[in-house]
Amino acid sequence: MEPAHPETGEAISLDSGYAFAGIFPDLAREADRALTKYRAESLQYGRPFGLPGLREWISEHMREDGANVPPDDVLVVNGAKNGLDLLCRLFTEEGDCVVVTAPTYFTAIPIFRSFGLTFLEASQDGEGLEVDALARALVERKRQDMPMPKFIYDISDFHNPTGITMSRRRREALVALSASLEIPIIEDSPYRKLRFEGEPEPSLKSLDESELVFALGTFSKLLAPGLRVGWVAGKRSFLQRMARLKSDGGSCPLTQRIVLEFCAEGRLRTHVERARATYGAHRDVMVAALRRELPDAAFTVPQGGYYLWLTFPERVSTEILAERAYRAGVSVIAGGAFFAAASAQAQGPNAPARFLRLAYSGAAPDQIEEGVRRLATAYRSMQ
Amino acid sequence: MEPAHPETGEAISLDSGYAFAGIFPDLAREADRALTKYRAESLQYGRPFGLPGLREWISEHMREDGANVPPDDVLVVNGAKNGLDLLCRLFTEEGDCVVVTAPTYFTAIPIFRSFGLTFLEASQDGEGLEVDALARALVERKRQDMPMPKFIYDISDFHNPTGITMSRRRREALVALSASLEIPIIEDSPYRKLRFEGEPEPSLKSLDESELVFALGTFSKLLAPGLRVGWVAGKRSFLQRMARLKSDGGSCPLTQRIVLEFCAEGRLRTHVERARATYGAHRDVMVAALRRELPDAAFTVPQGGYYLWLTFPERVSTEILAERAYRAGVSVIAGGAFFAAASAQAQGPNAPARFLRLAYSGAAPDQIEEGVRRLATAYRSMQ
Repeated sequence: MEPAHPETGEAISLDSGYAFAGIFPDLAREADRALTKYRAESLQYGRPFGLPGLREWISEHMREDGANVPPDDVLVVNGAKNGLDLLCRLFTEEGDCVVVTAPTYFTAIPIFRSFGLTFLEASQDGEGLEVDALARALVERKRQDMPMPKFIYDISDFHNPTGITMSRRRREALVALSASLEIPIIEDSPYRKLRFEGEPEPSLKSLDESELVFALGTFSKLLAPGLRVGWVAGKRSFLQRMARLKSDGGSCPLTQRIVLEFCAEGRLRTHVERARATYGAHRDVMVAALRRELPDAAFTVPQGGYYLWLTFPERVSTEILAERAYRAGVSVIAGGAFFAAASAQAQGPNAPARFLRLAYSGAAPDQIEEGVRRLATAYRSMQ
Repeated sequence: MEPAHPETGEAISLDSGYAFAGIFPDLAREADRALTKYRAESLQYGRPFGLPGLREWISEHMREDGANVPPDDVLVVNGAKNGLDLLCRLFTEEGDCVVVTAPTYFTAIPIFRSFGLTFLEASQDGEGLEVDALARALVERKRQDMPMPKFIYDISDFHNPTGITMSRRRREALVALSASLEIPIIEDSPYRKLRFEGEPEPSLKSLDESELVFALGTFSKLLAPGLRVGWVAGKRSFLQRMARLKSDGGSCPLTQRIVLEFCAEGRLRTHVERARATYGAHRDVMVAALRRELPDAAFTVPQGGYYLWLTFPERVSTEILAERAYRAGVSVIAGGAFFAAASAQAQGPNAPARFLRLAYSGAAPDQIEEGVRRLATAYRSMQ
């Protein structure tokens, strides 16, 4: 990359899904308790499944959200990506195929690739993953005697990068498809609680009667990404095998205790309210700035989460735009990074180079406004 | 396992390499600084390579130990086992072969197995890994056109489980062998600083002129295992590829900052002195108790580390002994767990069932004495 903005010397980051540091809570008291009252536990090797109290809290948190997941069905992991990695180890062998949406979470792609996996891509519309089309593709695969995918990976709430939330009927259809073909679903759900408006749809896990859904949860978006505390909720016998695959033995008991103390005091609820208000306001600022500065970029306003997914006119290359934007002092991610396989080569209306992801999470409102202005300047320089 | 000791209701643990909780330092001040002064850094996503200050500290720590490892050649990982896992991802494909000692670290075995690796086992004597025999085996492999191993894994200081420290001439021979065949060495070195007496041998990394040694370090044994902070030191271009394979993105910046503050204040040096004195005393208590209670068990007294490796008369099965010991209220690990491949089937003087590992690290001195008494009771019950 070129050097950053000549005036500020530093690019405004609208690229990664950082948390807004302005709302990081004070965890010093929780850490103090973890390191005094619970010192022997916090500094010793942890249990492979995680702190029992934390697993109970997660179980209750999911129960309130409609999913019946007993504490024994919860495995604490070193962040949701670590959970995804363990699920790949559990379910796949080199050369296996997995289902992802096009586009999908761009960090999941290299994780899947590192296991030598191939991709069956599912399209999305405003209701989320197009389950009928996926069902047809799977039937066709079966007819051709091709092996079935080892799992279906999706982010059904405030999808990364598109911001789409899957409709209830699609959720029911996806869970039914999974059950009929016995293909597990990995429901990656970091943003679910960050809903700014509207009513939540039931989680896939809450609709799951076949124990085929593995829900990935994380405190990264609820509390702070630096803590590296996430979880996998799903069928116990599979989690037991995953626990044995954890190369770290037990995840860090210190950060687990800090999270547990924070949650047990009831501080998480207040904090999530604050996060919702903050990120909702960030979204509004970005939406207004885009409408004002960059009317050529089309987007659907997401009801929650971290991201806006922009669609540019067909003639635009967002690869070039992202480069120019960086030189103008704002970093953004061009669409290509989010497409795993065949979709990455698409031309015309679905060409990855038409799309661009903006994160409104990490930057302050004035930085969001300035970042969009810089992006618009870069865009105009291409006309 | 059966229920534990009928009198105490709880087994004394002489099995795992736990730290002695009695010397865990007070880290509350360090955590407070990490969560106030450094809050935005500690709670945000971390950098893939780790905190720059911590990488500098590790570089200096290794320089004082004779190894020239610039900070850029240090990758912070989520504990040394995470480093081992990443090295497997980097160097191996399913079906590849790696060199391990027989016996070897029992947690490394399932990590290697999870990658589908096979084992070429190297024998050990009082000077450590028998390099000449390994060289002959590798030449023979080459002659038979069999693929070379992808790396040589060893714990050259206070080997786990045998307690052996490799002699200088063996170290030089091993590094020369690695260079001549271009086979990387993974030097796993958690116990090196826990030397109770005698002079250290140079680390393999300090003898490495070909950038083929990857040194695994950890704060687990220097400070506290619960923090999950370790590192890999080695050739930069390989670490860059490993950093991209880290499924957690950046490791936890909070625990890294706590460790860095502790080290930067000079507290680590004092703490390691204390750990040395404590574990040295634990070792002495265990050695005296074994000589008194269990004269049939032969062992070499290690000059450091966490473990004693017992050899029993040939007629004994330590599998049975470990079971009886557990029922008598002490948990220990029978030798079989430490042998990766062909050696696991050995009969006669090298049969795994003659061996047993005791950890003197985690239990208090009175518990060590009582644990050895219970082990001796179980042993006598087999006569």
